Amino acid sequence: MNVKQEWITYIEDLQNKICTALEQADAGATFIEDRWERAEGGGGKTRVITNGHVFEKGGVNTSMVYGVVTDLMRQQLKIEGVNWFACGLSLVMHPANPFVPTTHANWRYFELYDAENNITDQWFGGGADLTPYYLFEEDAVHFHQVLKNAQDPFGEALYPTHKKCCDQYFANHHRNEEMRGIGGVFYDHLRPTENFDIGKLFNFQQANGDSFVEAYIPIIEKRKHTVYSDDNKYWQEIRRGRYVEFNLLHDRGTIFGLKTNGRTESILMSLPPTVRFDYNYQPVAGSGEEKLLDACLHPKDWLGIDANDEVNVEWAGR
Amino acid sequence: MNVKQEWITYIEDLQNKICTALEQADAGATFIEDRWERAEGGGGKTRVITNGHVFEKGGVNTSMVYGVVTDLMRQQLKIEGVNWFACGLSLVMHPANPFVPTTHANWRYFELYDAENNITDQWFGGGADLTPYYLFEEDAVHFHQVLKNAQDPFGEALYPTHKKCCDQYFANHHRNEEMRGIGGVFYDHLRPTENFDIGKLFNFQQANGDSFVEAYIPIIEKRKHTVYSDDNKYWQEIRRGRYVEFNLLHDRGTIFGLKTNGRTESILMSLPPTVRFDYNYQPVAGSGEEKLLDACLHPKDWLGIDANDEVNVEWAGR
Repeated sequence: MNVKQEWITYIEDLQNKICTALEQADAGATFIEDRWERAEGGGGKTRVITNGHVFEKGGVNTSMVYGVVTDLMRQQLKIEGVNWFACGLSLVMHPANPFVPTTHANWRYFELYDAENNITDQWFGGGADLTPYYLFEEDAVHFHQVLKNAQDPFGEALYPTHKKCCDQYFANHHRNEEMRGIGGVFYDHLRPTENFDIGKLFNFQQANGDSFVEAYIPIIEKRKHTVYSDDNKYWQEIRRGRYVEFNLLHDRGTIFGLKTNGRTESILMSLPPTVRFDYNYQPVAGSGEEKLLDACLHPKDWLGIDANDEVNVEWAGR
Repeated sequence: MNVKQEWITYIEDLQNKICTALEQADAGATFIEDRWERAEGGGGKTRVITNGHVFEKGGVNTSMVYGVVTDLMRQQLKIEGVNWFACGLSLVMHPANPFVPTTHANWRYFELYDAENNITDQWFGGGADLTPYYLFEEDAVHFHQVLKNAQDPFGEALYPTHKKCCDQYFANHHRNEEMRGIGGVFYDHLRPTENFDIGKLFNFQQANGDSFVEAYIPIIEKRKHTVYSDDNKYWQEIRRGRYVEFNLLHDRGTIFGLKTNGRTESILMSLPPTVRFDYNYQPVAGSGEEKLLDACLHPKDWLGIDANDEVNVEWAGR
């Protein structure tokens, strides 16, 4: 199979499918598209939605970029090779209503080549995570269950491992590992092996991408008419501050994109529309705000699987 | 002279003096103080003002910290030695009125010691910069002139050099070097030499610290009663987004503080109270907003000194 070409086709179809589902859920605004080109090779389609009935700001972006492996890439990505190719979809949705969670997802494919243009390395990475402002356990369970259902056919050890990776990755290390939300799945460097060839990896990646609409849309539908107060909005904007801190201080994709001449406006569409930074803000003891904070400080086992134990994964190449 | 002890005394006096002047200009709110201790050694006094007549949020912090030189410090600060000491004052003031500029200033002193506790290295660093949301050239000229007047007695080549360093430092490299404001002065690693001994350096540092009130307060007084619209506030919040981007992506002090177990709430008091991140926001052609953006994209020579030429500085140890 021509993995590269099939992945590009898949990602472009997925962008259309997800944008259509989000527009239907919003029932107000539609995405506008900016196509861009990268001087060093490739480009992308940035699709942004603003001031809708549900979404205050959101983006569903695809990019297909390539170039020469630079010293910075060797150093920061720890990769070898002469040329590289990357293609992926990245989305972040910020609802206006503090009872509707923010979500982020990303699925990507990477290839490296030698001087004769032979593939010397290839891998998939991806994930999806949920950032609520108020905790509804049933929403967290639903989101995680759909992601687990997508991964289980490929090995039951996968979800617990990728759930744990997600908890570790989306944490504000400068705030005692406080997570930005209630997690999801995160995986990287999934390389083909004898037992898990590139075709199976491709199917795994598709299963993850295809599950997003089912994981997120029902939560929007359930919460989008909830009445909220100025205090609820205030808390949402405080938590959005944590989202900004994570994305600019810790997110490897954001930092690497900005340092390698990526398109700044496409990368930073992930930042929330309105944000507050208060000095030493503390939620009231026993409040809904404190309950959410507690879930961020102590990642929970939403599906009754102890993901904090060491998981023995039959997953070569990790 | 006991530089360390005299510097601590100076910094604590300066904190009091600056807070008093800012409270008088605000004529509404007062600073609250949080004292904190650092597990590895030292501590600080964080003073924060909120929802005043002038200041929506601001902080004037001192810290006096010390410890063992770690591998991270060797790597990131490029320093050698067994133990270190640092003491400084750092302030950021965010006015509510978009016609009153934000300001930041910092003055610091660093010592390194060998195993016998002999000083093996010592230096001063500091600076002050102004971040207006609308450009009043006379304010920029006033701010720069006061800073220049403070430095000129120590050598007329100092201000042009430190102005240029400031333009280069406070730039968002991921946005074509767009500055966060209209600059000021910035200097680091000022070490004693034969011609410029530690006492003279101390006096230079004091002259800078002492000039702050005269540089900033008259601008507040001139602008604080200006009537502003929702559109002016919107633009201020967009520019505050650039301030957040600079502080979290590029500011060496912020990143190093957070990575070395500094007090997160004291470090991040620098972030503005309310912020907007719009996708691809562009000011209207010919507007006041565009005029400000232009000044940030093309650092100006406010005092008629061409600071963009190479400056030949009689300033050893740089």
